[in-house]
Amino acid sequence: MAISETERRAMSRALELALRGPRSRNPQVGAVLLSPEGETLAEGWHHGAGTPHAEVDALSQLAPGAARGATAVVTLEPCNHTGRTGPCAEALIEAGVARVVYALDDPGDVESGGADRLRAAGVSVESGLQADDARALLSSWLDVRALGRPRVTVKWAQSLDGRAAAADGTSRWITGPEARADVHVRRAAADAIVVGTGTLLADDPALTARDGDALHAHQPVPVVIGSAAIPNGAAVTRHPHEPLHYATRDLGAVLDDLLDRGVHRVFVEGGPTLASAFLAADLGDEVLVYLAPTLIGGPRLAIGDLGVDSIDAQRRLSIDAVERLGEDLLIIARPGARPEGGH
Amino acid sequence: MAISETERRAMSRALELALRGPRSRNPQVGAVLLSPEGETLAEGWHHGAGTPHAEVDALSQLAPGAARGATAVVTLEPCNHTGRTGPCAEALIEAGVARVVYALDDPGDVESGGADRLRAAGVSVESGLQADDARALLSSWLDVRALGRPRVTVKWAQSLDGRAAAADGTSRWITGPEARADVHVRRAAADAIVVGTGTLLADDPALTARDGDALHAHQPVPVVIGSAAIPNGAAVTRHPHEPLHYATRDLGAVLDDLLDRGVHRVFVEGGPTLASAFLAADLGDEVLVYLAPTLIGGPRLAIGDLGVDSIDAQRRLSIDAVERLGEDLLIIARPGARPEGGH
Ligand SMILES: NC(=O)c1ccc[n+]([C@@H]2O[C@H](COP(=O)([O-])OP(=O)(O)OC[C@H]3O[C@@H](n4cnc5c(N)ncnc54)[C@H](OP(=O)(O)O)[C@@H]3O)[C@@H](O)[C@H]2O)c1
Ligand SMILES: NC(=O)c1ccc[n+]([C@@H]2O[C@H](COP(=O)([O-])OP(=O)(O)OC[C@H]3O[C@@H](n4cnc5c(N)ncnc54)[C@H](OP(=O)(O)O)[C@@H]3O)[C@@H](O)[C@H]2O)c1
Repeated sequence: MAISETERRAMSRALELALRGPRSRNPQVGAVLLSPEGETLAEGWHHGAGTPHAEVDALSQLAPGAARGATAVVTLEPCNHTGRTGPCAEALIEAGVARVVYALDDPGDVESGGADRLRAAGVSVESGLQADDARALLSSWLDVRALGRPRVTVKWAQSLDGRAAAADGTSRWITGPEARADVHVRRAAADAIVVGTGTLLADDPALTARDGDALHAHQPVPVVIGSAAIPNGAAVTRHPHEPLHYATRDLGAVLDDLLDRGVHRVFVEGGPTLASAFLAADLGDEVLVYLAPTLIGGPRLAIGDLGVDSIDAQRRLSIDAVERLGEDLLIIARPGARPEGGH
Repeated sequence: MAISETERRAMSRALELALRGPRSRNPQVGAVLLSPEGETLAEGWHHGAGTPHAEVDALSQLAPGAARGATAVVTLEPCNHTGRTGPCAEALIEAGVARVVYALDDPGDVESGGADRLRAAGVSVESGLQADDARALLSSWLDVRALGRPRVTVKWAQSLDGRAAAADGTSRWITGPEARADVHVRRAAADAIVVGTGTLLADDPALTARDGDALHAHQPVPVVIGSAAIPNGAAVTRHPHEPLHYATRDLGAVLDDLLDRGVHRVFVEGGPTLASAFLAADLGDEVLVYLAPTLIGGPRLAIGDLGVDSIDAQRRLSIDAVERLGEDLLIIARPGARPEGGH
């Protein structure tokens, strides 16, 4: 059965509703229930982990039986597993919903299969409506779903020969203003910026995303990892968000807690010790190297030890982009050798 | 007076003659003497340091008085200084030459002024004919003239984080086949390839310029610097040219001796110790970094110490080109910050 204009409008609305929900371990999903005549019966969205899914949230607003023969328009394939909330496919069937239109197939192993379950129960199912919009909306959650943790970008600035500072520790400036402005734009796209205590104490960074002196509209949460205390009056304490301080070296535990707090995208800004620890633990999903045309030599390495004893163990990356930013280069790369023949 | 077709042809011939001379501290120059009727009276070229310049070489083939009223077509402005051979401008005036057509102005402080001297003596002088060809012919000598020594390219291959090998010293392969082929093409454009004894002993390199298994037509002279002896049976002893071995760490002295041997372009292939020594001594006129998309970490740095204590002393470069070679990047840079606003 073809998708109607009413259903299309309902999907646009469902995508708006989805955004009302918070980022969490669960996806942001919206749902609209339409009567057989195309009137909106109820709207719902997912309010966060442990709360009902969007379809159930919408159904819960109706009197028993009121959804009989209705169409459910949902941004994500209804789930088919019993978690804290019970499978949505089952709830829709029990409520007598006659038709389900959804945008994006659920990529999970456990949750997916909802469409099959619905069809088996005689419900008419259509998928793919505004799938691209739904995918864009859920892109950071889709990463989280695939990785089982937040997506981590490890960024550093270095000289051509891989140094982060001169012998005496001075490093202002290795990269130019264009590169530094680019970093701020990318900070604004992250949910959290992470530094080690070494950088906190050495640089007293503000960890805000700025455009000149102005703050970007979205500010990532500042995160400090390491046992040293955050000094009173540190710049990060004046950040719009309260800084999170993890007195641990267990990066997996930090990422897990950040995910509980709805952090999907983590931007690791160093320093060298912390950046190397993320890379050595294979926790870097994207690497951003701001490469300045300068040679420094000496002991202050941008990346320290990665536990690579022999060349067979080198961490091959594939380059996604090389950009010129003023006099500097930005190299964007991902772990994993490029597939044979692909350039 | 306009340049005639006969003079143009004579200049092409003079450029051919120039190439008969060897590379040396002196430029390769060719000369053709034309009678007033446009017939070729004599040809000459510079046979190397300590021998007559091209014009004088041509004049020496004529009976006294036979050049009276002649036109001298020369690839470089006749010199005006008394070196081991006496000024050519004077010799042309004394021989009664009526006209001089030359390609390229002499860039030197001492030698130049030949054109003025000729004009003052009433000789008709035209310059700039086929100047671009002459400049191309003399390009390596023009570099030598400006630098007072051979032009040095320092090349190395490294991981993104500036490592030349894994902790155990293994490094095959960091860069891919395209990058390695590019190195061979650039070797073939050099007059000498230089390695330190460390690389000689570790890698036993052939130091030939190869295209697959075939040798390039031009082979640079292999040069080894350092006190360790070249082992009997080392691959470099089978090089088409006999290797030069300098048991010294005085890089200036090595370059000076190489220039005496006609080496204008030196390709320093490392290893890290020698490459760093060239850079620290400010003897790198061009830097080629083959950058592989891989992270290695650990102690095997592509560049060691450069004596940069504070960031103010960093060695700023400007990037001339960034090329993708298979999965790798080649960054070509020169010392000196890019001028303000120039990209
Ligand atoms: N070039 C760049 O892009 C860049 C970026 C940032 C900073 N920097 C420079 O880097 C310098 C600071 O470098 P740094 O390496 O000392 O600082 P860092 O990496 O910021 O901090 C190091 C600290 O991180 C903590 N840490 C947390 N998890 C860890 C783990 N898994 N493994 C190891 N350590 C862990 C440790 O703190 P505890 O010992 O307290 O547990 C460690 O001492 C500063 O001079 C700064 O200017 C450069
Ligand atoms: N990644 C690359 O592009 C690349 C290229 C080449 C080699 N490599 C690797 O580098 C390793 C060898 O590295 P290396 O650094 O030991 O070798 P190296 O730089 O080839 O040789 C070092 C030696 O050069 C001599 N030398 C001459 N002039 C010098 C000066 N001014 N200052 C200091 N030393 C001078 C010294 O020999 P004496 O002590 O005998 O006087 C010194 O021990 C090998 O494993 C090789 O595979 C990598």
